[in-house]
Amino acid sequence: MTRVRIARAASDEVNNPTSQVVRFGADRPLALDSGGALAPFQIAYQTYGTLNAQKTNAVMICHALTGDQHVANTNPVTGKDGWWDVLIGPGLIIDTDRFFVICSNVIGGCLGSTGPASTNPATGKPYALGLPVITIRDMVRAQAMLVDHLGIEQLFSVVGGSMGGMQVLEWASSYPDRVFTALPIATGARHSSQNIAFHEVGRQAVMADPDWLGGRYIEAGKRPTKGLAVARMAAHITYLSEAALHRKFGRNLQDRDALTFGFDADFQIESYLRHQGATFVDRFDANSYLYMTRAMDYFDLAADHGGRLADAFAGTKTRFCVVSFTSDWLFPTAESRDIVHALNAAGASVSFVEIETDRGHDAFLLDEPELFSAIRGFLRSAARARGLEQ
Amino acid sequence: MTRVRIARAASDEVNNPTSQVVRFGADRPLALDSGGALAPFQIAYQTYGTLNAQKTNAVMICHALTGDQHVANTNPVTGKDGWWDVLIGPGLIIDTDRFFVICSNVIGGCLGSTGPASTNPATGKPYALGLPVITIRDMVRAQAMLVDHLGIEQLFSVVGGSMGGMQVLEWASSYPDRVFTALPIATGARHSSQNIAFHEVGRQAVMADPDWLGGRYIEAGKRPTKGLAVARMAAHITYLSEAALHRKFGRNLQDRDALTFGFDADFQIESYLRHQGATFVDRFDANSYLYMTRAMDYFDLAADHGGRLADAFAGTKTRFCVVSFTSDWLFPTAESRDIVHALNAAGASVSFVEIETDRGHDAFLLDEPELFSAIRGFLRSAARARGLEQ
Repeated sequence: MTRVRIARAASDEVNNPTSQVVRFGADRPLALDSGGALAPFQIAYQTYGTLNAQKTNAVMICHALTGDQHVANTNPVTGKDGWWDVLIGPGLIIDTDRFFVICSNVIGGCLGSTGPASTNPATGKPYALGLPVITIRDMVRAQAMLVDHLGIEQLFSVVGGSMGGMQVLEWASSYPDRVFTALPIATGARHSSQNIAFHEVGRQAVMADPDWLGGRYIEAGKRPTKGLAVARMAAHITYLSEAALHRKFGRNLQDRDALTFGFDADFQIESYLRHQGATFVDRFDANSYLYMTRAMDYFDLAADHGGRLADAFAGTKTRFCVVSFTSDWLFPTAESRDIVHALNAAGASVSFVEIETDRGHDAFLLDEPELFSAIRGFLRSAARARGLEQ
Repeated sequence: MTRVRIARAASDEVNNPTSQVVRFGADRPLALDSGGALAPFQIAYQTYGTLNAQKTNAVMICHALTGDQHVANTNPVTGKDGWWDVLIGPGLIIDTDRFFVICSNVIGGCLGSTGPASTNPATGKPYALGLPVITIRDMVRAQAMLVDHLGIEQLFSVVGGSMGGMQVLEWASSYPDRVFTALPIATGARHSSQNIAFHEVGRQAVMADPDWLGGRYIEAGKRPTKGLAVARMAAHITYLSEAALHRKFGRNLQDRDALTFGFDADFQIESYLRHQGATFVDRFDANSYLYMTRAMDYFDLAADHGGRLADAFAGTKTRFCVVSFTSDWLFPTAESRDIVHALNAAGASVSFVEIETDRGHDAFLLDEPELFSAIRGFLRSAARARGLEQ
């Protein structure tokens, strides 16, 4: 698809997505951590497979910062495969012949759930920064309302990486009886100072773009694409690892035999990063980027429980499988260990897998055999325990 | 000083610095790696201490990306202490009662040596991007002309960290007979893919600022301060370490008791980064930032010597002391080890110190006792060998 068509498709998805949508009216507000409530609001979601009669085979997939609900189908905006279609589908690790898979766009997102690009019914204009700041707990609270709507009492599993992993932890903490198993991958129980720093750089890049217009760019028919591209470029570096960059790009030149002694993209890594920035801005709303990064910054599960992370999981019966990657420097293994220690202190059932890879944080989205085998083994044993034949 | 006064002082230093200046006319051009030559050009420099009669006690200090020649005196722009005044001065580690210390602004810089903000005598306007791209070797070639001008045959030592360390390596490689000892600190013999990536983000942030105006902002009376601030913020994260950020800031809030659920600087780390960005743009020229980052990207000492780093130092008699810091992720210890291995392969005299610290790359600029004791010990023994009483 051309860039213009992608941008138009992205815009079309905001209020009237091609996904299924559940609309909650003024009588069913979403309570927000900021103190207020959001009403009306809507959640756009995709499902795969069939809910069994006992309603015990539902798996909730939580997406990451710039992800969406199109986890295992062609993306209506980009035309690309679903972002986790290596993992989810008929006969795959999360087998849609056996499980009923749900994935919803988070509140604050831009692919059909209520977010800053959505039309505020009170004004007829986009919310922009008029939308209250959304937290990870707000996102999960909305997902629980979706699960209620689907008539599901308990999810067999909640699975997600990065910001999706934060939602997994929040689900297990806020709704322990509704989560049979939880799979937080490449995540942390709180956003570190360095991670907040990188997010702040991204936000400042967006806000420095004169086309951001204090957030009201949609009304003005503009988009802060330059600033958002810079934000994406900076963030993208943190999703990889130095080793992976060295292996993939090194100091290789891009379509040239020698340095040009100029400021064009001489190096492949420059060209690659520029491409990452350019393609991202077509599919993603800049204000949503601000809201998503803020939600992650604010996440601090221990702080929500008197400063002791174990108390977030007191008495839990959920079975946990925590996964980290050796080369992930955005959410290093130490962050996962902190989660595991807290779960142990809470007496929870927990397994922990640290996967050796040089692919960095993004490893969770890739065809990573060790990750797949860990998820397969964990879910198979849990399915038996839940009385689901595997 | 107020921000406006700092910006004015910085602008005043460009063509007519308060430092000493050596001007090279059209008859003494600076040969450039890009193929051309720069003429006329000037070098602004500071000296400390007295050159001895034998001219054997000169120490050249090479500054880093955003450094300048004011290494051990009050900075005329910011009013702050010299950037290495903890190390250099009467009775200090690099004792100006014994050594003649020279520090020059690099070519391409913005504090008095010819750079993109300097007036191009051919046009009467600032060079802007009309200045050829400068390399580390070009900077060192200019420094050698300064050393000639001062009548010094051999430097007792060349010392520098980060981009300054690259110049140290280049000095030792290009002018082995003119460097008695070399102290490359927290540096590498080539810029890594990840480091190029961070630089490219910074450049894109500057160029995305509408006030950059294709580099011709000075003529237009503007400055791309927003873009340059974002570039500085992103870079600044790479100068620290996650551990240091966690220790200094953690998730502490800035002048408030609770999250504000907005996009102000709730966290201390956000406020700190914004301050770093804001103060930097007053004192530094945006185009110089492009040139400095490009010079580092282009640096690849092995590539300049047929791909084998040891060949860059073949037959050297220079004594080396290579220093790295455990928490430096911009120039990790592995980069220093590569230098040491190459020096060993070249049969050079080399000592190597890896210093345990959580302060990241910036440790080289800080009051780091182990660094000081390593430099003191190395220089003391070398001074004896050179016949300088210590």
